[in-house]
Amino acid sequence: MPSYKAPVQDTLFILNEVLGLTRYAALPTFTEATPDLVAAILAEGGKFAEEVLQPINQIGDSHGCTRSPEGVVSTAPGFREAYQQFTEAGWGALAGNPAFGGQGLPHLVASALEEYFISANMAFTMYPMLTLGAIAAIEAVGSAEQQALFIPPMLEGRWSGTMNLTEPHCGTDLGLLRTRAEPQADGSYHITGTKIFISSGEHDMTENIIHLVLAKMPDSPDSVKGISLFIVPKVNVNADGSLGARNAVSCGNLEKKMGIHGNATCVMNYDGATAYLVGERDKGLRAMFIMMNAARLGVGVQGLGQSEVATQNAAQYARERVQGRALTGPKNAAGKADPIIVHPDVRRMLMNNRAFNEGARALMLWGALQVDLAQVAATPEDRQHADDLIGLLTPVIKGYFTDKGYENATNAQQCLGGHGYVREWGMEQFVRDARIAMIYEGTNGIQALDLVGRKLPLNGGRALRGWLTEIETALNVSSAESRLQPITDGLRRALGDLHGATQWLMRNALTQPDNAAAGSMAYLHLMGLVALGHQWLLMAGAALAALDGAPADATFYENKLITARYFASHQLPETAVHRARVEAGAANMMALDAASF
Amino acid sequence: MPSYKAPVQDTLFILNEVLGLTRYAALPTFTEATPDLVAAILAEGGKFAEEVLQPINQIGDSHGCTRSPEGVVSTAPGFREAYQQFTEAGWGALAGNPAFGGQGLPHLVASALEEYFISANMAFTMYPMLTLGAIAAIEAVGSAEQQALFIPPMLEGRWSGTMNLTEPHCGTDLGLLRTRAEPQADGSYHITGTKIFISSGEHDMTENIIHLVLAKMPDSPDSVKGISLFIVPKVNVNADGSLGARNAVSCGNLEKKMGIHGNATCVMNYDGATAYLVGERDKGLRAMFIMMNAARLGVGVQGLGQSEVATQNAAQYARERVQGRALTGPKNAAGKADPIIVHPDVRRMLMNNRAFNEGARALMLWGALQVDLAQVAATPEDRQHADDLIGLLTPVIKGYFTDKGYENATNAQQCLGGHGYVREWGMEQFVRDARIAMIYEGTNGIQALDLVGRKLPLNGGRALRGWLTEIETALNVSSAESRLQPITDGLRRALGDLHGATQWLMRNALTQPDNAAAGSMAYLHLMGLVALGHQWLLMAGAALAALDGAPADATFYENKLITARYFASHQLPETAVHRARVEAGAANMMALDAASF
Repeated sequence: MPSYKAPVQDTLFILNEVLGLTRYAALPTFTEATPDLVAAILAEGGKFAEEVLQPINQIGDSHGCTRSPEGVVSTAPGFREAYQQFTEAGWGALAGNPAFGGQGLPHLVASALEEYFISANMAFTMYPMLTLGAIAAIEAVGSAEQQALFIPPMLEGRWSGTMNLTEPHCGTDLGLLRTRAEPQADGSYHITGTKIFISSGEHDMTENIIHLVLAKMPDSPDSVKGISLFIVPKVNVNADGSLGARNAVSCGNLEKKMGIHGNATCVMNYDGATAYLVGERDKGLRAMFIMMNAARLGVGVQGLGQSEVATQNAAQYARERVQGRALTGPKNAAGKADPIIVHPDVRRMLMNNRAFNEGARALMLWGALQVDLAQVAATPEDRQHADDLIGLLTPVIKGYFTDKGYENATNAQQCLGGHGYVREWGMEQFVRDARIAMIYEGTNGIQALDLVGRKLPLNGGRALRGWLTEIETALNVSSAESRLQPITDGLRRALGDLHGATQWLMRNALTQPDNAAAGSMAYLHLMGLVALGHQWLLMAGAALAALDGAPADATFYENKLITARYFASHQLPETAVHRARVEAGAANMMALDAASF
Repeated sequence: MPSYKAPVQDTLFILNEVLGLTRYAALPTFTEATPDLVAAILAEGGKFAEEVLQPINQIGDSHGCTRSPEGVVSTAPGFREAYQQFTEAGWGALAGNPAFGGQGLPHLVASALEEYFISANMAFTMYPMLTLGAIAAIEAVGSAEQQALFIPPMLEGRWSGTMNLTEPHCGTDLGLLRTRAEPQADGSYHITGTKIFISSGEHDMTENIIHLVLAKMPDSPDSVKGISLFIVPKVNVNADGSLGARNAVSCGNLEKKMGIHGNATCVMNYDGATAYLVGERDKGLRAMFIMMNAARLGVGVQGLGQSEVATQNAAQYARERVQGRALTGPKNAAGKADPIIVHPDVRRMLMNNRAFNEGARALMLWGALQVDLAQVAATPEDRQHADDLIGLLTPVIKGYFTDKGYENATNAQQCLGGHGYVREWGMEQFVRDARIAMIYEGTNGIQALDLVGRKLPLNGGRALRGWLTEIETALNVSSAESRLQPITDGLRRALGDLHGATQWLMRNALTQPDNAAAGSMAYLHLMGLVALGHQWLLMAGAALAALDGAPADATFYENKLITARYFASHQLPETAVHRARVEAGAANMMALDAASF
């Protein structure tokens, strides 16, 4: 049976000692987020993840969701009860707008907890995560009436939310979508069409489900410029917020999937369902992207969360399983064999994962801080800078974290040998669950295109320059500290690769866009490595500062320095091959005739 | 529904134009393997894979194996019938010793077919593959009576075979095993113990199952030096080959696994089962390794086979699914969107896979040729050289092919987006099936240790020198050909990394063995890349030679050159990071206290 322990100490180290949370205390939403309160929330949320969510994770996988012939979907045993506890504790409303009943805390705090919930039970956590995405869209573009009617019960957890984009013949290319919205005399619409892959599309945990649906009006352009966003409640909502009759939307089928069995992935049939336009007509894609960008960060956290929990279980196995002897002589001389953690190749997998997990946690929280600062920083320049940074890094956090999440879950599974392949140890579930995160909310290939094709050139490259300046600053601050040299040296080399790859793209991709797309995934990974290197430098600096103060838990800080050096010696050198791939261009990649495949 | 087409043309190109099969026509076993006969066998075997094995692959996955309360195991619908056809066609006896009813063809031909069978249905193919491993062990160390009694019905396919090594508390470290063999007055033994993860351990496809079991005699050393190998028939065999009473061995449970559901992975209980010593007492591990080495090559082919079939299905989807427009302008102007194969990032995945599949097929067949030559080459020196080469490359073929097989199956799945994650398309099965190959027959970490700790230093590094000489020869032959320069340049650079990493190990690992183990996986991948680069150079040379003769199918050869260049520009540069990892050593990897994980 797998287990999970929320890494509260590590989160607090990042929040307090790396990001310096108290520096922001004067800003709205941060005012009440005192170190003590944040520590208490993380401890409580971690306990909830460990004690309520984790124990039903394997049950969700083996039991899955079931659909009755009438389209009623039941979640796995324990999910309803856990959801009840989740909403009672208010975990879904932490960063919600107080105007609608939210607790108004920084996204930063909510993101820290999100990692714990995902590690403990990714399929479960998708239900409230999608609700938060739907709230974000309604809050951004909905009318005051829509906000007042829909957001409070969603923040409360009484109602949940979904995103309905994909159709059988179209996913990435939403211009092709066929779902129609017919205007009605009362200002509402009737929506008809089929949506697939709808996470949390139907279930038994809430009174109502608020579907956000992309559809086309009859007289709109037949392209992405003719897509509007609609609210379609599962149960119609009266003006006073009470529930009316069931709407003409139903779950036609549950997808049989590789993983996340605990989440109901639905085919949704809209048969003239009553719908309400959200935001401007034909501008639905823009509204959906507000939701999507938040969701992409959340999916990035899924990569981290699965890597973390898989690593914890692999490490525990590696400490306990005895097999063979250390090459450097017995470490458990009284026993017949040593624990396998003495073997360098087992360590390699654990250290790879650890270096990612801690680095990614720092980057994820740094990113969540930018989300907050983009809204509440003191000056327009500061808000713009934060928005630039998170816009640039969102595809990296989504794409790099989820590629690594899957790779690391696989490595963790490998530590258990054959026991990793059988169900009872739970390792193979982490792999299967982690796999989806590379695909949904825009495949990682789409993230890479977004990064290279849109985010890099935006505003003349302002975001990249702003980010690189932050890294240069960190390098300059650290350059006098010889104990950081292995890390600063590695990061400088990696940064050289990033500069080289960027310049190559500037010279070769403007006239030949295939060169940008061909190198986009390599560029995304290159940037992910530099971003983690940056965070490792910041963490190593904070660890040194702490050690200079002779802290009680010196081992924690010394381990940070060791892991930072490992990241620099074993992970950062990868940037060279990513640069080589970018610079190899599209010619050999595109030369074959499509028919030859 | 996934499909499969055996790549017969590619296999024949490698056999005839790259390896030059006719050069070996004078050698035993090769005499009858004329190009025409081989082509006919491959065509027929390919058809069998496509039409008999592939159609039941998804059924095997969804249905799995079932075990009655009495321990009777039933395979999935269609498996018995397919096995019947398999044995009637004699597919399992192709390379078998004619003295025992085999067809006496080269292993090379059997290996070529093995790839097709694995691509079509990996779980099914494990049944006959394990039988071949058991035959190899009995043929190598069994008595004349044992060979005569057991091998003919196994070659015929009437009986199957298994390998029984792992126990609940021991896998890699067989010195810990607890299964006991008690000598009996009649010269037989009674075996008692529990073995786990036994592939094909119990099923309904053959009259009998011959278990090869590792166990300890009461007075033997309690270490790897006290392990003996035994034959334990499921049904006792009389001296005339007829079946007697059921033996005291039974399937206690079927493992619930991530994949290969069509294969019965059993907990086997031995309750004083009648057993016969095979080979010398206490020398069981050596005998088991004969079986294991052949099996490791077969597992390597599993990596290739899953990568190949997954790539075929991804390519078909990419040619047919329309979504978005090519960055270079519409390629399907009449339609609303272009097929996704126009997008460079989709191409990247397909080309990565293709460059591996074709390169790995060449290396696999080159390896199979060495297996043959080690037995039948004209001089002892030639036989020794071939044995050196295949000994050195076996861990690379097992480890590198299976790591890549899983990675490529994952990439192929990614090409389908959300459709890759749901069961009906069959892509996620390829990933789940491919995953086991990295684990069994010695985890890939063990392969890496075998390579760096045993195969490299063996006989003063003779095998590595012999192999490098072959590569240098190929480079020298090609150096005058400017059309090969992108490939020769890339291979020379990669070879430089291999030399550098090897020298670093020689200087730093002898006194500090952790340095060898810490870099072993990187070294294995580095060697895998160089080995594929070598094969790509040979294939590109053969393609050029063919093109100079103005062949009918010029596209086939031109595609070889393009793919060779892609391998050189996009894959080979990876050697640099593997070298950097080797040279980074063990210090940062091993510095953390075990308790800190």
